[in-house]
Amino acid sequence: MVPSRSTLSVSSSTSTSEPLAARLAGIEPFRVMEILAAARGLQAQGRDIIHLEVGEPDFPTPEPIVEAGMAALRAGQTHYTPALGLPELRRAIATYYADRYGVALSEGRVAVTPGASGGLLLAMAALFNPEDEVLMADPGYPCNRHFARLLGVRPRSLPVGPECRFQLTAESVAKGWTKRTRGVLVANPGNPAGTAISMEELQGILAVVQQHDGWLIVDEIYHELVYGATLPSAAGLGDRVIVISSFSKYFLMTGWRLGWMVAPDAVMPALDKLAQNLFLSPATISQHAALTALGKETRGLLDACRDELGQRRDLLVPALTQLGFHVPVTPDGAFYVYARLPERVSLDSTAFCRDLLDKAGVAITPGADFGDFQAGRHVRFAYTTDLERIQEAVERIRRYMD
Amino acid sequence: MVPSRSTLSVSSSTSTSEPLAARLAGIEPFRVMEILAAARGLQAQGRDIIHLEVGEPDFPTPEPIVEAGMAALRAGQTHYTPALGLPELRRAIATYYADRYGVALSEGRVAVTPGASGGLLLAMAALFNPEDEVLMADPGYPCNRHFARLLGVRPRSLPVGPECRFQLTAESVAKGWTKRTRGVLVANPGNPAGTAISMEELQGILAVVQQHDGWLIVDEIYHELVYGATLPSAAGLGDRVIVISSFSKYFLMTGWRLGWMVAPDAVMPALDKLAQNLFLSPATISQHAALTALGKETRGLLDACRDELGQRRDLLVPALTQLGFHVPVTPDGAFYVYARLPERVSLDSTAFCRDLLDKAGVAITPGADFGDFQAGRHVRFAYTTDLERIQEAVERIRRYMD
Repeated sequence: MVPSRSTLSVSSSTSTSEPLAARLAGIEPFRVMEILAAARGLQAQGRDIIHLEVGEPDFPTPEPIVEAGMAALRAGQTHYTPALGLPELRRAIATYYADRYGVALSEGRVAVTPGASGGLLLAMAALFNPEDEVLMADPGYPCNRHFARLLGVRPRSLPVGPECRFQLTAESVAKGWTKRTRGVLVANPGNPAGTAISMEELQGILAVVQQHDGWLIVDEIYHELVYGATLPSAAGLGDRVIVISSFSKYFLMTGWRLGWMVAPDAVMPALDKLAQNLFLSPATISQHAALTALGKETRGLLDACRDELGQRRDLLVPALTQLGFHVPVTPDGAFYVYARLPERVSLDSTAFCRDLLDKAGVAITPGADFGDFQAGRHVRFAYTTDLERIQEAVERIRRYMD
Repeated sequence: MVPSRSTLSVSSSTSTSEPLAARLAGIEPFRVMEILAAARGLQAQGRDIIHLEVGEPDFPTPEPIVEAGMAALRAGQTHYTPALGLPELRRAIATYYADRYGVALSEGRVAVTPGASGGLLLAMAALFNPEDEVLMADPGYPCNRHFARLLGVRPRSLPVGPECRFQLTAESVAKGWTKRTRGVLVANPGNPAGTAISMEELQGILAVVQQHDGWLIVDEIYHELVYGATLPSAAGLGDRVIVISSFSKYFLMTGWRLGWMVAPDAVMPALDKLAQNLFLSPATISQHAALTALGKETRGLLDACRDELGQRRDLLVPALTQLGFHVPVTPDGAFYVYARLPERVSLDSTAFCRDLLDKAGVAITPGADFGDFQAGRHVRFAYTTDLERIQEAVERIRRYMD
């Protein structure tokens, strides 16, 4: 039995002779992954590359969480859990909202998901029909548009810039709402600009949503990575709000693939049957480790990593400004700087990123990954490497620009 | 900030006052989960319940695989991997096909997925448009219809009974193909009947598929759980076949949520960009453990568990027959018996399952979980508990029926 060895060289964005689904034309690959692949290619040739492209903290998972994962394995915790997660984890997440945000919620409103990715899929599948529109910011997290398109839902991107801190506002949502619009998706703080939305603005957006009998999805995966302030959570904002969150970023558990959502009671049965069918259950070892991640003994370790991210921001933003990049709004959190290219750079941002990687060995992400609006003039720096390497990256960029 | 505390009691199958997505009407909850919940409720009251409902092996993950998971944790393997999986795992899976099935394939054709569930979603998303039809067996694995409906794809169920060993055939596929049909999904061996499809029949089905320029998806998650024979894999059948497989069943890694697929080269870029967007990557610890699962040192342990499943089948099938159940085709593998209720049972199968659980403390699954065709007269027994408990279950059913 000889396998097929088609030698077709297929570009992932163009159609092929194979009759694949039409939705693929609307789903772009992550450009950052191409940058990453190119960067690794150069490393394989012996080049020293500084990675400021990937949206993943460089810190390893803290020891107590790792130990909890090992203990779960030792205890034989290798079977399926309920589709919406271990009851004790759902309870611990509910308690976390009470302790951290003063939001009282029943564990029945918490769903544990395979990453925030799983939560975004469940939310969109539960709430929106094909041809419905969902409003989202451009620039924004690219997968959001693709979750929508997978389901035949139309992502409607609203351009956002410095004047609105790279976030949707009640005003832009009200103006952007059409007959087809059924919901709004915001990230607080956002990617790629790291800016937060005030509770007042969020409530204003929600008022518009409620007026239209729609839904508000609030992605809070970077919520605990805000420096020097505690953002209030949208989990307390009522029965038209779904909050998406994750153990990946603040809790430093990316590869464990675990997130959660907080949804209104009325949506939970839909989430449950969707999760039963689409995922069966989230990863069991990760769920046991997450119980420890939420515990008080890890908070000091996690906060220390968050504080180091804040130091990196405080190094990087002024250094980029000095190099002629324009960072109109200081990021409140996450680990990203979205910067406008210096005027004297004539290349578009995709070509600039390629050239910078090639000539200076610094990997960053072009604006095109996050949307269309002024994408050709913007790049994202992810400060997911240590201060010394960030300093070195700045030096390399300085030499490259000279 | 007081959270919403809606007290709406929402049935998961009826519409609600909340404007949820219409697709939910076509997505049923797993009935087996309701049986499981009822069974656990009785256990909480102190009743002794024998579980023959859940499609999960009772064996824990073998020690060497657990050790490999712990070693990965110890080594700090907690970051994202590439979206289609660790290159060394993709290579090991390709090697497994060469060693086990004599099928030579490049690692580039292997995608590691978050469970077979992830593979089924990727395959349907890559291949089928809304309104396209996919042919599948009724009875069959219920989530298959729901993956299709999530995407607006139409599952077209073809009734299968003992005369075709509860499987699609070239003839039924040729007859069932309509203008809208774009593909066929088979499971080999199948759920709920555990029957295998011969390579000759599979090639016949493929010939029909190719004639219509369509796609054949072959779910081989129970493939290594065939007793006393090695089924040839469909992975060697060419450029219109996608094989879905899993570390859950034979490799006893359910809670680790890891599967894989083998697809034609021309489909891989589509799978890659879908996986990047929908999943980011499969669970990292699980991927490292899976490398050991595929190793030669675990095969003896895994084969011993498979052989015990075979002994359970050899106990259960004759015992059920003696009780008046009709098992027209002996299952070749998996861990299921799909049985017709004895004539003297007047209840429909859903009521029978409820009554049997309540009165005899034996949990089994009604046919309605697997489709419509003669579902009211069939039940599924999952022999996922040890021989002694299966014997006890048989005695309880005997007393219940008397």
